[in-house]
Amino acid sequence: MLVMKGILPEKGLKLSFEPFELQLKHVFTLAGSSRSTTPVMLTRIEFGGFCGYGEASMPPYLGESHKTAAKYLSALKLEQFSDPFRMDEILDYVDNIAPGNTAAKAAIDIALHDLTGKILNKPWHKIWGFSPEKAPDTSYTIGIDMPETVRQKVKEASGYKILKVKLGSRNDIEMIETVRSVTNVQICVDVNQGWTDRKKALDMIFWLKEKGVVFVEQPMPRENFDDIAWLTQHSPLPVIADEAIQRLADVQKITGMYSGINIKLMKCTGMREAHKIITLAQAANLKVMIGCMTETSCAVSAAAQLSPKANWADLDGNLLISNDPFLGVKIIEGKITLTNEPGIGIQLAVNNYPAT
Amino acid sequence: MLVMKGILPEKGLKLSFEPFELQLKHVFTLAGSSRSTTPVMLTRIEFGGFCGYGEASMPPYLGESHKTAAKYLSALKLEQFSDPFRMDEILDYVDNIAPGNTAAKAAIDIALHDLTGKILNKPWHKIWGFSPEKAPDTSYTIGIDMPETVRQKVKEASGYKILKVKLGSRNDIEMIETVRSVTNVQICVDVNQGWTDRKKALDMIFWLKEKGVVFVEQPMPRENFDDIAWLTQHSPLPVIADEAIQRLADVQKITGMYSGINIKLMKCTGMREAHKIITLAQAANLKVMIGCMTETSCAVSAAAQLSPKANWADLDGNLLISNDPFLGVKIIEGKITLTNEPGIGIQLAVNNYPAT
Repeated sequence: MLVMKGILPEKGLKLSFEPFELQLKHVFTLAGSSRSTTPVMLTRIEFGGFCGYGEASMPPYLGESHKTAAKYLSALKLEQFSDPFRMDEILDYVDNIAPGNTAAKAAIDIALHDLTGKILNKPWHKIWGFSPEKAPDTSYTIGIDMPETVRQKVKEASGYKILKVKLGSRNDIEMIETVRSVTNVQICVDVNQGWTDRKKALDMIFWLKEKGVVFVEQPMPRENFDDIAWLTQHSPLPVIADEAIQRLADVQKITGMYSGINIKLMKCTGMREAHKIITLAQAANLKVMIGCMTETSCAVSAAAQLSPKANWADLDGNLLISNDPFLGVKIIEGKITLTNEPGIGIQLAVNNYPAT
Repeated sequence: MLVMKGILPEKGLKLSFEPFELQLKHVFTLAGSSRSTTPVMLTRIEFGGFCGYGEASMPPYLGESHKTAAKYLSALKLEQFSDPFRMDEILDYVDNIAPGNTAAKAAIDIALHDLTGKILNKPWHKIWGFSPEKAPDTSYTIGIDMPETVRQKVKEASGYKILKVKLGSRNDIEMIETVRSVTNVQICVDVNQGWTDRKKALDMIFWLKEKGVVFVEQPMPRENFDDIAWLTQHSPLPVIADEAIQRLADVQKITGMYSGINIKLMKCTGMREAHKIITLAQAANLKVMIGCMTETSCAVSAAAQLSPKANWADLDGNLLISNDPFLGVKIIEGKITLTNEPGIGIQLAVNNYPAT
């Protein structure tokens, strides 16, 4: 084609990205690993004088990294799209160009939503027609640790109305007893597939209910279908799928096996698919939780746009880091508090945002 | 409360409505009834200097009328809502204030979408992220009639790429033979529950396939669950649910029983629920058709916003009337052609729109 670069104006979407390392305030321990940093990829899509921000958060155990995200994002030719509103088309392209890479795909989806919301001059919770005050309290995560550290973390979390306590190691009872020695707030627990015997699991859930626990997340390995269906059927508390659900097609698979699902943008490729998953889940009478990884206020604010539709939220990822490059959704007295700021409702925190 | 009327400005949504009688170009015959007019209720919601238009189309056999719609709409207190974007809240209120009244509810939903789209200055197909050129050809309906009239109607419909032929009376074969004597375009058929013997129905479908028919809509009464499941399983053509599906909760009920669904705004209470139904249907691998009643360019243009997500469209309701009070979506060479006009993309046709 007779198009000379520099003569015709750039008309397509302009993508840029930048690796970034999140510093965690506390060493973070799950059933099976611990770490003090999380790699993220910060993205930007520019179009028509507007700039949308996105993020891929990539905890190492999920398989994505700065390297995989850079490779994936470098292969995208977003400049072929001259209208950021054509999300079906753009995000189908983004999804189909390579398998996996769900966090990197979410980084595109989030930036596109931020961009289009800014063009519309409205936040996405409003464009979607939600009632922002229905956003739930967020839980605050208490990782597996020694009693002294747990007590200190729980005291630091005094503003939160619900704590998410990580279980699945040998000291589950001690974890709960320690938390309960300091506070009477609601607790939910996340076992991260850590239990293997369904009868012991059920006994534990009955005990947890007495301790004021409101739901149990991913109690057993996701491939133990029969055990989990049995546990959900007998459990006095809702049993929520996390590792067992990633994308839209998984909703049908877990219906009848779990009481609800934990939707995370980094698993499901972003806000657009998350919105569809909520529609499906609620039509199937599944409880909806919206969660996150350790991530900046960018991805957390994106997830928060969907939170008015959730029964529970676990959007504390940005509260666990010390070098957040964004200002975004606020937690006020434990509650997710959405603003009327357009897009995903974020601004740059200039001290932390990397110079480009 | 110490609020004096006339001193404080009106802050809420302002609803008004007007009965209107559509004049049909041809007497319209279904399996079981015929008529030459359709009553509709035109609605308007005003807010902040913007005005959104909506419509309830009420073919008599569905049970709504000018009287029921006026009663229902008079009971609504939309002035309590000071933000038209809070659709979850407004439309939950609209749905829960009375059962049924699905067309009258759609008249509110459509006007709200037109209003908010105008405030955003974007059409809804764009806000939803669809690709407008994916809108399908619309079918054009050929009602049950004598061969001479059928031939004439088919000739008038020469611009359309697919005809929807009504079957379910005693002259089904004659209807198809008559259409085929004039044209070779694609045909779909709508039986409106008119067949009662599943084996005869299957034989007929095999014959229809030879005649270039692409799908069969509601071949048997919706309550004949086993017959329809059997027919769908053996049919060489997709079997589409129409009377069997009205609202979101029906999608799950018909999954596995039909190959697809015909979504109509007047059945499902409007654009918001229709959008959700499409998400559910496509996740369940159901084909999606978007249809209409005889209605003005208002409701047809509203449905057209969703049409890029549909496999087939039957949006000819406005083409069948002679006193359309709106200008809206255009059919160009048989294809639904969406514009960049905001909201649902309509303007008043001043000669037909009733003076208020």
